[in-house]
Amino acid sequence: MPAVDLNADLGESFGVWRLGDDDAMLDVVTSANVACGFHAGDAATLARTCRAAAGRDVRIGAQVSYRDLAGFGRRFIDSTPEDLTADVIYQIGALQALAHAAGSTVSYVKPHGALYNTVVTHSEQARAVAEAVRAVDSDLPVLGLAGSAFFREAEELGLRTVPEAFADRSYRPDGQLVSRRERNAVLHDTAQIAERVSSMVGSGRVDAVDGSTIPITVESICVHGDSPGAVQIATAVRERLLADGAEIRPFV
Amino acid sequence: MPAVDLNADLGESFGVWRLGDDDAMLDVVTSANVACGFHAGDAATLARTCRAAAGRDVRIGAQVSYRDLAGFGRRFIDSTPEDLTADVIYQIGALQALAHAAGSTVSYVKPHGALYNTVVTHSEQARAVAEAVRAVDSDLPVLGLAGSAFFREAEELGLRTVPEAFADRSYRPDGQLVSRRERNAVLHDTAQIAERVSSMVGSGRVDAVDGSTIPITVESICVHGDSPGAVQIATAVRERLLADGAEIRPFV
Amino acid sequence: MPAVDLNADLGESFGVWRLGDDDAMLDVVTSANVACGFHAGDAATLARTCRAAAGRDVRIGAQVSYRDLAGFGRRFIDSTPEDLTADVIYQIGALQALAHAAGSTVSYVKPHGALYNTVVTHSEQARAVAEAVRAVDSDLPVLGLAGSAFFREAEELGLRTVPEAFADRSYRPDGQLVSRRERNAVLHDTAQIAERVSSMVGSGRVDAVDGSTIPITVESICVHGDSPGAVQIATAVRERLLADGAEIRPFV
Amino acid sequence: MPAVDLNADLGESFGVWRLGDDDAMLDVVTSANVACGFHAGDAATLARTCRAAAGRDVRIGAQVSYRDLAGFGRRFIDSTPEDLTADVIYQIGALQALAHAAGSTVSYVKPHGALYNTVVTHSEQARAVAEAVRAVDSDLPVLGLAGSAFFREAEELGLRTVPEAFADRSYRPDGQLVSRRERNAVLHDTAQIAERVSSMVGSGRVDAVDGSTIPITVESICVHGDSPGAVQIATAVRERLLADGAEIRPFV
Repeated sequence: MPAVDLNADLGESFGVWRLGDDDAMLDVVTSANVACGFHAGDAATLARTCRAAAGRDVRIGAQVSYRDLAGFGRRFIDSTPEDLTADVIYQIGALQALAHAAGSTVSYVKPHGALYNTVVTHSEQARAVAEAVRAVDSDLPVLGLAGSAFFREAEELGLRTVPEAFADRSYRPDGQLVSRRERNAVLHDTAQIAERVSSMVGSGRVDAVDGSTIPITVESICVHGDSPGAVQIATAVRERLLADGAEIRPFV
Repeated sequence: MPAVDLNADLGESFGVWRLGDDDAMLDVVTSANVACGFHAGDAATLARTCRAAAGRDVRIGAQVSYRDLAGFGRRFIDSTPEDLTADVIYQIGALQALAHAAGSTVSYVKPHGALYNTVVTHSEQARAVAEAVRAVDSDLPVLGLAGSAFFREAEELGLRTVPEAFADRSYRPDGQLVSRRERNAVLHDTAQIAERVSSMVGSGRVDAVDGSTIPITVESICVHGDSPGAVQIATAVRERLLADGAEIRPFV
Repeated sequence: MPAVDLNADLGESFGVWRLGDDDAMLDVVTSANVACGFHAGDAATLARTCRAAAGRDVRIGAQVSYRDLAGFGRRFIDSTPEDLTADVIYQIGALQALAHAAGSTVSYVKPHGALYNTVVTHSEQARAVAEAVRAVDSDLPVLGLAGSAFFREAEELGLRTVPEAFADRSYRPDGQLVSRRERNAVLHDTAQIAERVSSMVGSGRVDAVDGSTIPITVESICVHGDSPGAVQIATAVRERLLADGAEIRPFV
Repeated sequence: MPAVDLNADLGESFGVWRLGDDDAMLDVVTSANVACGFHAGDAATLARTCRAAAGRDVRIGAQVSYRDLAGFGRRFIDSTPEDLTADVIYQIGALQALAHAAGSTVSYVKPHGALYNTVVTHSEQARAVAEAVRAVDSDLPVLGLAGSAFFREAEELGLRTVPEAFADRSYRPDGQLVSRRERNAVLHDTAQIAERVSSMVGSGRVDAVDGSTIPITVESICVHGDSPGAVQIATAVRERLLADGAEIRPFV
């Protein structure tokens, strides 16, 4: 079994509103995608999340988003590349300072929600995000989907790309995710999810929705933590990987 | 004549809305207090301002504020110290990344508007801001009012404090500014303002509103640039200082 | 036993973030203080809350606030009267349209959080809020604290004032609330709270923190619903009042 | 010459930031599309604009938008119909209360910016906006583009649709606007614009960019006022229409 990273979205509370159980998830993951204030995360929340992550040696990544608190970053916004690049630089920098104040650092960048989905195919916005990362630090890796426009643009700019798989999402035969609008897009059975993840990591292959088996490159597994059930699934994934002999550690 | 720095607020547009003539002011000042997005400054505006400042070797400072776009940071907000510290770290970091992308760096921190006025006397908020600056970089100087709670707290934390004078504001006999709510708080005559600034810098003294002459420590002069008349006054201040033999350069 | 109204804050979710159990509370209260988007409540949340309230014949009030999502309206903002009046008119109108679309109407106005506390003593802001209510509809009653500056200003403008008591808060001998910063500000024992409320309503008197008994005028009781325990307390208050023979119905 | 309405966007300042010359434009137009706070317009600005419009008997319309201050409502947002309907109801209601406080009323609804452009073809969002208008008041007319999805949906819901033409925009042979991304999308010559508008109103026909002459139904002309030049053009349009014998008055 190769080593694998586990990542999850954290720091997604805002002001008085709580979301997810950051403390529970920090016991599960090796990489924390910390919100940067544009879809979630007031600064005090982000500071606390950075301190909690730093205290457990969990690595911090910048989870950058469209500017959309009301929509939690889940709505496509037809941003210009210039605005988007500046917005992403702004967010990474803000989190860098908070991570630094917590005795840690921002180690990677991962787009959130609608921005994540958009840059799979939208070359112009993909380029804008990649340019932002390079402008901040050309040594910052980006986490995303293998085969995406985002990875193509990031690689053209010399950035390191880290492909991830989703623990609870179904794959199409072409390796892309089944849309959430379709049935069977999301898996719910804990044992099945844990088994499938371990198999993906061990074999480099996964069963697509049509029954075919496709190759998949996985350096990190994305787990969710925004409900008690989600934390349970994430924990099961971690335990199954360890039981099957995988090393769980941050990607290099 | 000693050397003196000239500073002004820049990057205070937001989205489609323009404020001030950044290009004109960058020809006048040696230090640009660039907004950080909480009272003004969308990220693309800030990126442009940082590039313009970097292109003219004008130093960039982080002009941090309460989170209040609708009030332009001019309204006191009874923020907790924890929130305020995190908000200030967030803002400095965001601008650091944009300044870095422009080939420059953030060289100092100056509170904006109501936060500036509040930390003259509000020790708890003053401490919160000072702690934020130290958490980001204990070598970052802070620009503000001599004798303020902010300077006392900043110095206790080991920060370098840089006292500034206002080109167009009246002083009370105790060295504090006359409130804007009073008559004679603001000077309007260009020649008088330029003359008075040059005299302050040269003599270390200024005439207070009651006619008495008081000592004033000035390492930087704050000029305004948010109207055509303001740019004209700022230019006159600069020219008068140069004519009187002062060197205009960033504070050390 | 006289009749009494029960009111609680509702519609305080925002986008993806949930707060409180609106459905549970709508079975308890007769008046719903619905947020208006400035401290909480995206429009779709408010629309749902209005529909749920209308469906159970619970009356809708506009819970108006400072513009402060990040602080949940719990921080004093030094707003000008002109801004505050316009902000309150804006919020009432927005909720009126949503209530109308739900087949209901806005029946009263209650300030939220820091604004509620501020207008107890801050005459200028109290006047600004009262003027906003009058500008929208001089027949709209305001819910608040007897003896407050807000009630004085509202009455001067001819508005009907409805005094409320807090189920779980301690009173000072002068009839004002004990500050949350002090010990014993909040009661936690369900049976004690229910007993005390019933006694207040029945006798028009309440025990202050110093042991003295003071008169209290109560047309409505404010209960909280933002945690499972809070819903339980609110339910106990309702049941005790009914058991003691009080009629629970909207204030007239 | 038939009678015609002149409309323009007003109330688009925000806080300290000014946009457009509302006073000048209120002397030109008969209908003011007043912003509602989502793309522009803090409440105090909107209150002032409503008072100014009411004082000159200029009719007030609600210019509703996506929630996007940073993008001035000029960026498509992939909002759900439920969110969009609630957002539009919220905005109309807010402006209704401010208009009422100014002694006037909201007489029509016009989508702004990217929402305007989107509902020309996006049936789902068009429906969502139309449903919002009907939910507030089924007698409120909507201002927009003849032949648009928005008009189709609005008419299905029984709303009155008022077709407008743009004074300074070029038309395609199919009656749609030439995209701003193309050359010749916008006309700049004052005399030509005034002449063309008068001809449109008088003849019900306009020359398209390919030289063909197409029919156009015009009950209102949209003029811009966000620059000194724009005010001058708007004034010229008004004067030319009057000189050619048109009556300028609100649409019925």
